[in-house]
Amino acid sequence: MRTNNMRGKFIVLEGLEGAGKTTAHQIILTQLKQAGIQQIVQTREPGGTPLAEKLRYLIKHEFEEPISPQAELLMLYAARAQLVENVIKPALSAGKWVLGDRHDMSSQAYQGGGRQLDVALLNSLKESVLGPFEPDLTIYLDIDPAIGLARASGCGELDRIEQQSLDFFYRTRERYLALTQHNEKAVIINAEQPLEKVTNDIQQAVQKFLTFAQ
Amino acid sequence: MRTNNMRGKFIVLEGLEGAGKTTAHQIILTQLKQAGIQQIVQTREPGGTPLAEKLRYLIKHEFEEPISPQAELLMLYAARAQLVENVIKPALSAGKWVLGDRHDMSSQAYQGGGRQLDVALLNSLKESVLGPFEPDLTIYLDIDPAIGLARASGCGELDRIEQQSLDFFYRTRERYLALTQHNEKAVIINAEQPLEKVTNDIQQAVQKFLTFAQ
Repeated sequence: MRTNNMRGKFIVLEGLEGAGKTTAHQIILTQLKQAGIQQIVQTREPGGTPLAEKLRYLIKHEFEEPISPQAELLMLYAARAQLVENVIKPALSAGKWVLGDRHDMSSQAYQGGGRQLDVALLNSLKESVLGPFEPDLTIYLDIDPAIGLARASGCGELDRIEQQSLDFFYRTRERYLALTQHNEKAVIINAEQPLEKVTNDIQQAVQKFLTFAQ
Repeated sequence: MRTNNMRGKFIVLEGLEGAGKTTAHQIILTQLKQAGIQQIVQTREPGGTPLAEKLRYLIKHEFEEPISPQAELLMLYAARAQLVENVIKPALSAGKWVLGDRHDMSSQAYQGGGRQLDVALLNSLKESVLGPFEPDLTIYLDIDPAIGLARASGCGELDRIEQQSLDFFYRTRERYLALTQHNEKAVIINAEQPLEKVTNDIQQAVQKFLTFAQ
């Protein structure tokens, strides 16, 4: 069907802090434009709609009281529901491509793996909020959390807080790997390699996707 | 166990718009104080904590974009998680009583019944956010939505919008009745009766509860 062929594609970047998502985002954006794809909507999660950005602020900046892990997860999914329904799906239907900085896999990895929240709840939320909707391509930048956090903090050593929570990030990485290893719509990039090699791997993955997506 | 006996009780008022929750709240508050219960925490949902009040505002006042039914439900549960963990449970543990204007049953009735959201998601959220926690007594003020909305709007006739959404409120009432009819911890009050009779029924229900709760 012509309508179906006209639908845009949804590419998502996933990975831990310091994995290099921002750099990868620019690499992919350039590559898509060079491939002749002009209309590219860029999203980030949580956020991307008026309500979702307000929820992002509450998730990241609310310090007046402790936020329960459940409340955090539910605000993330509320923001995602808004972004998917009001931005991503309309863009794809209009033939635009969407390049996302994080999507559902982040909740599965961070809240499910890192915070060890109930898988039944996560599955139920995914099913209810997203149904069969999913990215056409997920590029997961894999990195040892100790290396990623050291990069993210801009120095070679971890501070006390980062060190304390390292277990959290190892659990998150483990879940990321479990979710991507046997996923035909996901590509794992070794983000510990030199930038030139990482860039090359990303470009190859995107090129392969473009070849089959057309 | 003495510790257990010292725990406060959680009484919740439920019902449609115009059922008379505000009046009932004052009746019960007066009755509890007369019974010698001095420390009574009053809550409302959604709301009651710094984060939950911000979510209440977003739920009720966000008009920049359509809010999906799922996002609404998730924000309600995020607010509930905060209220239960940071306010209600600590109050009950300290021996205080809690008198709530709405609680979980509102989501079951309005979002489950009225908006017809998936029961599996509702059950999953209830289980994950609340576990076995529930009110010790729920007083449901039952009223025909047409009468309740007319009362709430302060006149005898429904406007176009209220009339249009009447089905929503009938579905909500039906779910309320299904949830309370065979619930040992719930009492149904016929809120269509004259105020004097409603007041008397509420006071009898609370007195019966007080007799068994001591």
